[in-house]
Amino acid sequence: MNYPNGIKKKFKVSASNRGMTLENEINESNIYYRNNDIAVIYKKPTPITINKVEYKNRKDAVIKEAHFNTPSTTDYNGVYKGKYIDFEAKETRKNYFPLSNVHDHQIKHLQKIRDCGGIGFIIVRFIDENKTYLLEIDKLENFLDNSNRKSIPKEYFVNNGYLINQGYNPYLDYLKIVDIIRRDNNEKIF
Amino acid sequence: MNYPNGIKKKFKVSASNRGMTLENEINESNIYYRNNDIAVIYKKPTPITINKVEYKNRKDAVIKEAHFNTPSTTDYNGVYKGKYIDFEAKETRKNYFPLSNVHDHQIKHLQKIRDCGGIGFIIVRFIDENKTYLLEIDKLENFLDNSNRKSIPKEYFVNNGYLINQGYNPYLDYLKIVDIIRRDNNEKIF
Repeated sequence: MNYPNGIKKKFKVSASNRGMTLENEINESNIYYRNNDIAVIYKKPTPITINKVEYKNRKDAVIKEAHFNTPSTTDYNGVYKGKYIDFEAKETRKNYFPLSNVHDHQIKHLQKIRDCGGIGFIIVRFIDENKTYLLEIDKLENFLDNSNRKSIPKEYFVNNGYLINQGYNPYLDYLKIVDIIRRDNNEKIF
Repeated sequence: MNYPNGIKKKFKVSASNRGMTLENEINESNIYYRNNDIAVIYKKPTPITINKVEYKNRKDAVIKEAHFNTPSTTDYNGVYKGKYIDFEAKETRKNYFPLSNVHDHQIKHLQKIRDCGGIGFIIVRFIDENKTYLLEIDKLENFLDNSNRKSIPKEYFVNNGYLINQGYNPYLDYLKIVDIIRRDNNEKIF
């Protein structure tokens, strides 16, 4: 990626000094999945509203003023073994997950995905111990329905989510968890 | 959508004076599908590279310089009856479809979608007679494998694609065609 004018992609160094953010690891894992014909999953482009463009043609166009929009959906979606996959990924330095990290309409979006037969979840990394969990929308919904807390304790992820294996090929094998979920649901996976 | 500085959303008037572009009709159909819990399908944000941002915080950030990227995937994707759906939509005023309208990597993307068990296709509208066809990636691939032409004749869409019904709720019921395709493939649709 090319950020010419002094803006650099942030590579936060995690407690384990692995040197990659969750986002980077997911992006690299998605490249691995795509290159090996396992799945086609992309991070969506950042939604913006364009106010001003200077151009001769589309190729030479320069956006001169634009604003970031509040995302109405999640960051990642795609296909794996015929199934629609949709998720949001977040890191936290706390030993709980602040719910302010996920917008209400993102939760509603994941519920709609589930209702349409897709697989929706969040991936949350607890940076300090470098552990990353996948939590299905059903379990997230359960928590929200039964609690007024503004954060989800880590124990909830331990007890209701799935710990994602962190390795090298791919960095974060979250689709292995999707297999487990589908097997648990007695789905026939081709 | 809000395009403050004099840039307005273009509503091209088609030959039939229906007043909506294909993109608008698909977007409206997707809203209808979402509001009626039929499917969750969105147009992806325009991919851009941001060069310069002025900001105090994310909410107040103003993008001061950015460029449009060549899209590496297609415009639309989402979930319908558990299945991953992915497509590109184009209009033409000719009575053939110029292949320059679809990038090579978009065709490769649709092939990968199909190989991962998703449903990939293009939607092409022939503006002058206001007819809109859905053509599966398999059929597009067939054409490309067996021809050196730089355009696909309309007859190929008539004979190998599906005419999409244009109405009001939704404007363009392309998911009805997806049902037909899945039934033809002997899939069990829930």
